[in-house]
Amino acid sequence: MPDYKLVTREHQQQNTVIEVNDIKIGAKKIIVMAGPCTVESKEQLSTIAKYVKKSGAGVLRGSAFKPRTSPYSFQGLGSKALEYIKEVGKKYNLITETEVMEINQIDLCGKYVDILRVGARNMHNFDLLKALGKSSKPIILKRGISATINEWLCAAEYIMLNGNPKVILCERGIRTFETMTRNTVDLAAVALVKKITHLPVIVDPSHGTGIRDLVSPIAKAAVAVGADGLLIEVHNDPENALCDGDQSLLPKQFEILMQEIKDFSLAVGRQI
Amino acid sequence: MPDYKLVTREHQQQNTVIEVNDIKIGAKKIIVMAGPCTVESKEQLSTIAKYVKKSGAGVLRGSAFKPRTSPYSFQGLGSKALEYIKEVGKKYNLITETEVMEINQIDLCGKYVDILRVGARNMHNFDLLKALGKSSKPIILKRGISATINEWLCAAEYIMLNGNPKVILCERGIRTFETMTRNTVDLAAVALVKKITHLPVIVDPSHGTGIRDLVSPIAKAAVAVGADGLLIEVHNDPENALCDGDQSLLPKQFEILMQEIKDFSLAVGRQI
Amino acid sequence: MPDYKLVTREHQQQNTVIEVNDIKIGAKKIIVMAGPCTVESKEQLSTIAKYVKKSGAGVLRGSAFKPRTSPYSFQGLGSKALEYIKEVGKKYNLITETEVMEINQIDLCGKYVDILRVGARNMHNFDLLKALGKSSKPIILKRGISATINEWLCAAEYIMLNGNPKVILCERGIRTFETMTRNTVDLAAVALVKKITHLPVIVDPSHGTGIRDLVSPIAKAAVAVGADGLLIEVHNDPENALCDGDQSLLPKQFEILMQEIKDFSLAVGRQI
Amino acid sequence: MPDYKLVTREHQQQNTVIEVNDIKIGAKKIIVMAGPCTVESKEQLSTIAKYVKKSGAGVLRGSAFKPRTSPYSFQGLGSKALEYIKEVGKKYNLITETEVMEINQIDLCGKYVDILRVGARNMHNFDLLKALGKSSKPIILKRGISATINEWLCAAEYIMLNGNPKVILCERGIRTFETMTRNTVDLAAVALVKKITHLPVIVDPSHGTGIRDLVSPIAKAAVAVGADGLLIEVHNDPENALCDGDQSLLPKQFEILMQEIKDFSLAVGRQI
Repeated sequence: MPDYKLVTREHQQQNTVIEVNDIKIGAKKIIVMAGPCTVESKEQLSTIAKYVKKSGAGVLRGSAFKPRTSPYSFQGLGSKALEYIKEVGKKYNLITETEVMEINQIDLCGKYVDILRVGARNMHNFDLLKALGKSSKPIILKRGISATINEWLCAAEYIMLNGNPKVILCERGIRTFETMTRNTVDLAAVALVKKITHLPVIVDPSHGTGIRDLVSPIAKAAVAVGADGLLIEVHNDPENALCDGDQSLLPKQFEILMQEIKDFSLAVGRQI
Repeated sequence: MPDYKLVTREHQQQNTVIEVNDIKIGAKKIIVMAGPCTVESKEQLSTIAKYVKKSGAGVLRGSAFKPRTSPYSFQGLGSKALEYIKEVGKKYNLITETEVMEINQIDLCGKYVDILRVGARNMHNFDLLKALGKSSKPIILKRGISATINEWLCAAEYIMLNGNPKVILCERGIRTFETMTRNTVDLAAVALVKKITHLPVIVDPSHGTGIRDLVSPIAKAAVAVGADGLLIEVHNDPENALCDGDQSLLPKQFEILMQEIKDFSLAVGRQI
Repeated sequence: MPDYKLVTREHQQQNTVIEVNDIKIGAKKIIVMAGPCTVESKEQLSTIAKYVKKSGAGVLRGSAFKPRTSPYSFQGLGSKALEYIKEVGKKYNLITETEVMEINQIDLCGKYVDILRVGARNMHNFDLLKALGKSSKPIILKRGISATINEWLCAAEYIMLNGNPKVILCERGIRTFETMTRNTVDLAAVALVKKITHLPVIVDPSHGTGIRDLVSPIAKAAVAVGADGLLIEVHNDPENALCDGDQSLLPKQFEILMQEIKDFSLAVGRQI
Repeated sequence: MPDYKLVTREHQQQNTVIEVNDIKIGAKKIIVMAGPCTVESKEQLSTIAKYVKKSGAGVLRGSAFKPRTSPYSFQGLGSKALEYIKEVGKKYNLITETEVMEINQIDLCGKYVDILRVGARNMHNFDLLKALGKSSKPIILKRGISATINEWLCAAEYIMLNGNPKVILCERGIRTFETMTRNTVDLAAVALVKKITHLPVIVDPSHGTGIRDLVSPIAKAAVAVGADGLLIEVHNDPENALCDGDQSLLPKQFEILMQEIKDFSLAVGRQI
């Protein structure tokens, strides 16, 4: 028995395309998901949503439940944030996504948000993966902090085998000896995984680098290497962000990125 | 605010000693936890328990729920195994331990087993850690596959801050570029963590090395470096083990290890 | 005293442009260096040189002295290969480059070849770096297998401080836990280093990935991220190559890559 | 053809014992090599030599040529230091060792010093290894910063294949994601290499940990795991050391370590 099979192109040759309302993930158009790391208030989310919508993002990102290394760090607004996400998403006609950390958050998050995200720290949380296999929502599956490509695909297999074929793989940088960047973005993994699997693959250059100035170059490189989408942190006031301010783009920077990335999309025969 | 404080020697100078029946973890006597990776049957567990008890183990190890990279690998016997663990532990007068992977397993496992274990893949499962903070059972907290020492101590802080002071740290090898061993055992981390924290620290040389012949040398080195205990896989028929046979000691090898380790325990001023 | 200063943009704001005959490295045109991993015969080198010239490469790569993990592996043709490189380079009007492993090879290689290369295994060979500082030849300085960005820039500083300003940095993948690719290409390092230093930075997608099918996507991503050049292995008969056949492009694949990469060059405001 | 053969126990079953005057490396007695990281003056070296001799060290360590990440760091006293090493070694009847960084230092160092050392950064400097194969001196071969066990043994094979059977392997910690310690000491590698090869294996807990307080625990663990010797930095004034003061033991601490380590040596059936 191989480690995985449902995720492979041997099992399904053509690309999986995941439709959420008018958005198709894994199709010709590269999908950009943008927003704050964590929902801090309705005003914050609304301000940022307005900007990213205007610049062309299709999905609003934002965490309600936030895994933090230290118990003394801000842990997210929880269910209150889910209400904000739903309201703001509706207002700006944006698909929404958020992170689920626990089985009992799946139904709750599912009531308010369109796409559920598994964070890097939970990629090996097999019970969570199995439970997400019972969900009807698309799942963004981030690669674990030190997960091999094989383990990442196995995690996707857990979700698919339990009944949910709508898995979006997300490369977000791996842990290496290098400390000048937060993680080491592994773009070769994106190209390799696109060959092995039929699932859409997106890249998170914000967590991948941890440095605002590197988000745009890595976003472009991600498109060049064949990614189907991008997950980008945008914040209107990064210096006062409660989480990850250093890696968040300002709205203006995001707008420029969306402009510049068009040529790269065309160069790979896609659009944005 | 520092990342952690309850776990530090600044907060509590003297060593935490965790008592379970007649066993004291973190005291002068080095505690050996031994048994199969995973409970495969009552007979298997009983056979191994008899051997390890005879050789001097104080705690019987054995997983009922088993995190596996691939969904097609043996996932453990589940609640059936918990009954076996309780019955066999009672028969041989052994303290018992098992892994909890999910919040809803905490109460269940707690009914049958004395000590709960958080596996390396779940060290960053913060909701699980918080829930274990509400438990009255001692918790073995394995270091994450690529967790820094700082993150490991933060994970312990999550449990303590939520009300459970009975945390046992377990070094089980970290992921590096070296492939000849399964993981790279970080014994300097054990010595360093013993200085920073008052919590007991144990070492798992079986997962740490993945190679039967290295278990004994690393067990001795762990004692030399100051570990308070060992977590060792023993199997009576490793070639047919459903999991981790390559790293399991035969009962006879375990007996020899327990003999040989005495001198090292004395050399660090302890007993076994 | 900081670790380095001559390499920084604080010391020199504008990009260093290194001229070799009609080639300018670090200027608007992206320079492609292509050829076999190792020179195997005059015929082999000549065949490959003809192809890569036709497809638009500006520099012919080829090792005469070859660092190999095992002493039983093919170690290169040595000085005989240098003669071939010179002859073939002249025949096809290609700039040439080769690796120097030892101080006493610097003068020898310098007589035959235009650009000298320091391999990843020698990035920390400080005496070699100092001696290359006395050379008038441009130096390609590959990032060490596990060198931090800081160490890489320090290595460049050794060369510059000893008198040679013509340093070309080359990202070639770092060693991580991932085994499915040969190394992990760190493209964020390229973007970051381009900000810190005025030196040209090129990327080696062949060693970086170790997989033929990944060379083209990573080459494109390298251009997107801001690289000034590419170092690519091409072999007319990779299955019988004496070294690194698995990661060498066929001449036809190289030709296609050179075509496809044009749009990416334009998208970053450059040409190829 | 395998990667290596001369180094294996298939090629030579019994342990290689390297004799230098009255010292036997690889025999029953565990050999302790101690001294400053770098020779700073004759007085400094003499002071430290007196202490380490009194405490039972058999070999005086000390670098004359010093590989440093930055060209602006102290690079060692060079040949002047070699004279001091010889003079001080003779005065206190200590075997001496020092690092060679370059082929042209081999003869020079060989005139003054008993044992030559290849540093971690030069483990992949194959021309240096080949040249050391022509030397009659014993060679301490440090494991490269990110060298696999296989690569380390291949490096030893280079020396042996070129004629010098007197190779002493030295584990000095590998580079991982952990930053709280300077490197991650891989003691399982020591146990594994002792099984594969007949060569003596020693451990450097000073570079391995980078933290003074961890030197003693790791030294004990190294003995427990089967190491044939230790390489330890001792400095009489570590706060003013020109290199590596943080990881150097004070003479008194070294004396205590030498006392405490006796029991561990006995526990492995050896002496010190």
